[in-house]
Amino acid sequence: MRYDVFGMCNALFDIQAEVTEAQLREMGLTKGAMVLIDQEQQRRMVPRIYSQIVNAEPGGSGANTLIGLAQLGGTGCYTSHVGDDEHGQLYREGLEARGIRACLGSSPGETGICLVLITPDAQRTLATFLGRSQNLRLEDLCLEDLQASRYLYATAYLWDTPCQKETVQAAMGVANAAGVRVALSLSDPFCVTRHRDELLDLIRTHVDVLFGNQTEAEVLTDTDNPHDAARVLAEFSDVAVVTMDARGSLIRQGAVVHEIPACAVKAVDTTGAGDMYAAGLLYGLTQGLPLDVTGRIASYCAAQVVAQIGPRVDALNLDAVRHLRAGGSLFEVCPPP
Amino acid sequence: MRYDVFGMCNALFDIQAEVTEAQLREMGLTKGAMVLIDQEQQRRMVPRIYSQIVNAEPGGSGANTLIGLAQLGGTGCYTSHVGDDEHGQLYREGLEARGIRACLGSSPGETGICLVLITPDAQRTLATFLGRSQNLRLEDLCLEDLQASRYLYATAYLWDTPCQKETVQAAMGVANAAGVRVALSLSDPFCVTRHRDELLDLIRTHVDVLFGNQTEAEVLTDTDNPHDAARVLAEFSDVAVVTMDARGSLIRQGAVVHEIPACAVKAVDTTGAGDMYAAGLLYGLTQGLPLDVTGRIASYCAAQVVAQIGPRVDALNLDAVRHLRAGGSLFEVCPPP
Repeated sequence: MRYDVFGMCNALFDIQAEVTEAQLREMGLTKGAMVLIDQEQQRRMVPRIYSQIVNAEPGGSGANTLIGLAQLGGTGCYTSHVGDDEHGQLYREGLEARGIRACLGSSPGETGICLVLITPDAQRTLATFLGRSQNLRLEDLCLEDLQASRYLYATAYLWDTPCQKETVQAAMGVANAAGVRVALSLSDPFCVTRHRDELLDLIRTHVDVLFGNQTEAEVLTDTDNPHDAARVLAEFSDVAVVTMDARGSLIRQGAVVHEIPACAVKAVDTTGAGDMYAAGLLYGLTQGLPLDVTGRIASYCAAQVVAQIGPRVDALNLDAVRHLRAGGSLFEVCPPP
Repeated sequence: MRYDVFGMCNALFDIQAEVTEAQLREMGLTKGAMVLIDQEQQRRMVPRIYSQIVNAEPGGSGANTLIGLAQLGGTGCYTSHVGDDEHGQLYREGLEARGIRACLGSSPGETGICLVLITPDAQRTLATFLGRSQNLRLEDLCLEDLQASRYLYATAYLWDTPCQKETVQAAMGVANAAGVRVALSLSDPFCVTRHRDELLDLIRTHVDVLFGNQTEAEVLTDTDNPHDAARVLAEFSDVAVVTMDARGSLIRQGAVVHEIPACAVKAVDTTGAGDMYAAGLLYGLTQGLPLDVTGRIASYCAAQVVAQIGPRVDALNLDAVRHLRAGGSLFEVCPPP
């Protein structure tokens, strides 16, 4: 196979800046929340924080997962849509520098941006401008690359725009026909609420591996606990994964449930935990590892990103991953909090 | 009077960033030089240095001088032209935050930018995008403010664009008629070469105080030493000022020459030295101080900016200025190198 994972999500160029509480108020943002902003708003905000920018790199949930996968040694191709501006060019270059093939559609306009505003209390406030990422079309798909991948990984975020949704549905059809396994992340509880019936239908017909957190899984299945949610979802897809923050995660296949503990780390910032869990999960699945081993690697990866600020781990401890891969216990590799 | 100085120059939003030598090469820039760049180039460059930006604020030669004047306690109004973008808004806000009235024309398009790229050896490479600053028109002038100022201060940089030149000429006519004294900075030797005859004619008919460095003054007067240059220029204008870097400056009025020593500081970065000298000069002139006292204040101000990185002094030592103003010697206030 050419790639372990073919990913699809919004291409958002992450701009991380350290700001004051007063600046957040001036921008009209609520601390800790995520808001969608328009072009006018993002144009106004970025120059005001120029000298406070600490990082600027490709981001968005799906890209974070593919970058995590590449850190683990997996291979990936990423599809989204960017504008014809410098952020789009930097997005492409950034993915390629991380060893990920950038299969990006492009059209005149502005690339999506996620402003990640970090206040002195280490809280993160997100202002997202979706920009051209919403324009993902069927023509953008690198079909040969998709057909030559082990897994297609898409996020439910794409359900908010008709042309993105159609493109993912088409990609899933191609994947199913080509024997490429299909994984879906539920992305966000509100997103699940908005598209509940459509998602259930999609999962039943197209999805092999379903991944979501407890709230998302409960909303989707109309249950009130993660075990019931995993049970229902495992009837719809081959593998159902439900994450439960510090209480670990459940991986269910048919009647078999693997209860994966969480690493006991001191949580600093949970941003990116789900994306990195998905990276570990896809790594294990594409490497053909047993589900319990896969779950422990995913749990370890999520813990690493939670123990630090920002959505990505600078350098993942690959010795720990190798230890888990060989069947080692999670408690042996998790640093005490 | 409403203002001490009414300033006119290009409105350039300064973006200062710390870059590597490799980045300069990638951008195709020659270290230490100033180049003009176009819109496409500046749009490409800025996002690539986001996380390296250390400062972003109103700049350009004339604005630097007015900001220096305000630090000294003088009052000013600044006229230029900006775009309808966020940089233009920040330019206006930045001037006003420094107590300077912003009389800025505006039209659709991008505000001028000066990228100030600082390499690890503390050298500065400038990439200037003039943007809408070139669109300064007669309608942009706040005539009442000009007529209610002690001095009009313009820079020869404006001679490169016909509409800017016409606007300055008109402003000088208004100033002359209203009894507002007119000061002109020669800005740049190449600029003087390009417009030599026009500038000589202008100085003869409109300018009371002429200010330039040795090279500019020699080029303009076709002489080979600063004393001869000052002598010729003092025939054309009331006061002629020639700066000579570490060798101090000459201020000549009629047959009287004041030789002003330079402060013996360790020169770190000469950017902004001329702008800050002009600030001190205009401060002394508008306060009605004797020319030798004015020169010492100007010399002190220039030294402060040379002793640090960047075009502006964070906090000017006003005690030293008061000492000079009271007739004190420059050697008493200049810190040893």
